[in-house]
Amino acid sequence: MNDEFAGDSSQWAFGTGFEDPLAGVDTTVPPGVDAAELAARCLMLGDDALIMSQRLAEWCSRAPDLEEDIALANMALDLLGQARLLLSRAAAADPGVVPALPEGSPVPAEDALAYFRDAEQFRNVRLAEVENGDFAHVVVRLLLFSVARLALLERLRTSRDQVLAAVAAKGVKEITYHRDWAGRWFLTLAQGTEESRRRLVAALDALWPYQAELTGFDVELRDEVDAVLDQVFAVSGVERPERAPLPGTGRDGAHTDALGPLLAEMQVVARAHPSGRW
Amino acid sequence: MNDEFAGDSSQWAFGTGFEDPLAGVDTTVPPGVDAAELAARCLMLGDDALIMSQRLAEWCSRAPDLEEDIALANMALDLLGQARLLLSRAAAADPGVVPALPEGSPVPAEDALAYFRDAEQFRNVRLAEVENGDFAHVVVRLLLFSVARLALLERLRTSRDQVLAAVAAKGVKEITYHRDWAGRWFLTLAQGTEESRRRLVAALDALWPYQAELTGFDVELRDEVDAVLDQVFAVSGVERPERAPLPGTGRDGAHTDALGPLLAEMQVVARAHPSGRW
Repeated sequence: MNDEFAGDSSQWAFGTGFEDPLAGVDTTVPPGVDAAELAARCLMLGDDALIMSQRLAEWCSRAPDLEEDIALANMALDLLGQARLLLSRAAAADPGVVPALPEGSPVPAEDALAYFRDAEQFRNVRLAEVENGDFAHVVVRLLLFSVARLALLERLRTSRDQVLAAVAAKGVKEITYHRDWAGRWFLTLAQGTEESRRRLVAALDALWPYQAELTGFDVELRDEVDAVLDQVFAVSGVERPERAPLPGTGRDGAHTDALGPLLAEMQVVARAHPSGRW
Repeated sequence: MNDEFAGDSSQWAFGTGFEDPLAGVDTTVPPGVDAAELAARCLMLGDDALIMSQRLAEWCSRAPDLEEDIALANMALDLLGQARLLLSRAAAADPGVVPALPEGSPVPAEDALAYFRDAEQFRNVRLAEVENGDFAHVVVRLLLFSVARLALLERLRTSRDQVLAAVAAKGVKEITYHRDWAGRWFLTLAQGTEESRRRLVAALDALWPYQAELTGFDVELRDEVDAVLDQVFAVSGVERPERAPLPGTGRDGAHTDALGPLLAEMQVVARAHPSGRW
């Protein structure tokens, strides 16, 4: 056992060097790729994953049964892993996005991004941050989120940046499962009891104003996402909601009131020890 | 996509038949194995995993960095998976352990065990249930828990019950990682700063009275566990605590005050819909 216990890092938490998420990977930005744009894109996708992961994790231990508890925990973990890689990539591509910490701080860049930014510096869509509701709410949120994220990641598999391409390829496998899980439950709730259908429709109605933000002004992406959602709605016999998109976007740092408390909870331990030491 | 959406279960949560944890497995209790004893053992190990999983999951999103957040979530998920299999095995071996639900209820047996028992019916050790403390606390708790669980599961790999033997074999791989993670952090905190060492020793001191319960009256098991812990203490330069074991045992349903609130949180959704329907 002694071998495993090698090393004598004096940090209790940060910088223990157990594992660099991009260890051994060449993180040089390839010629012709705009480093700032690459970092901005990784930050958006990373923040989406990080914040959504927190909301799914809140469901852990509150799911209606063990099977779904495990499924939700698994999906939260997939997203947390994606977040870590994407935030690392953002920081390596453009160190300017990383918040300044006291000199000599051993906090890795991806942790600085996760734990030392304030709400207005986060670039996630608001769909990921709004408060949890009932089980129908988590199903609808995950469906809308996953359908759009899957379409995005499928494109990014051919990114000229090899790091992002690799992260996207891994993500496609994970998010396909998330979308299928959410789609299966969407259908189950739609075809279940009168009450389950009522709750599903209510959740869809409540979350729909946040949907347009997922595809932004990318018309091609929007059409692709719309086609998938329309298929799910058709199979389930649910009407596409007509509510208008909410103005503004989390991509610019304009968030709902729900993000602050989520971050406070997530960041409290790391911020209590900004030097990463006790 | 339509194929994936087949089926029209009218349950919104329970009994959707997505997956039976022991599907395709022969759950007949082999000749010579006492079914009630087998069920009791699976219940203890399953409850340990379930309750410990909840406490680890509470750490998700509060860990000091993304790497440990992911590690803790992974370990919580491993234990949740073990809990599900062990509770299923307990119920199949001796249906008498499953709480009675209204006739025709579609709640699977392992969910009935997780969500419809009260505190005094749980058989987990109290080490798993006590409230979370700081990061040193989760490290010490996981070290004590994993060293004992690993020794137990290693033995059960040769159980005459093939189902339990298979669950134990899978568990050994998972818990080996948990023990190594906790051991590595134990050493890191012990050799870190004065403050990290002080917190580690305080956590060890606080949790030590719960340690003896993990091995019960099994002297051979106790010796094995002691030897591993003594090695960790020696490498880390930490004294074995001298505090006496707490009287009573969670194995008899005598729990601390911490279990009730944990169960309330975990069971609220399932109990709000005991028929598994909206």
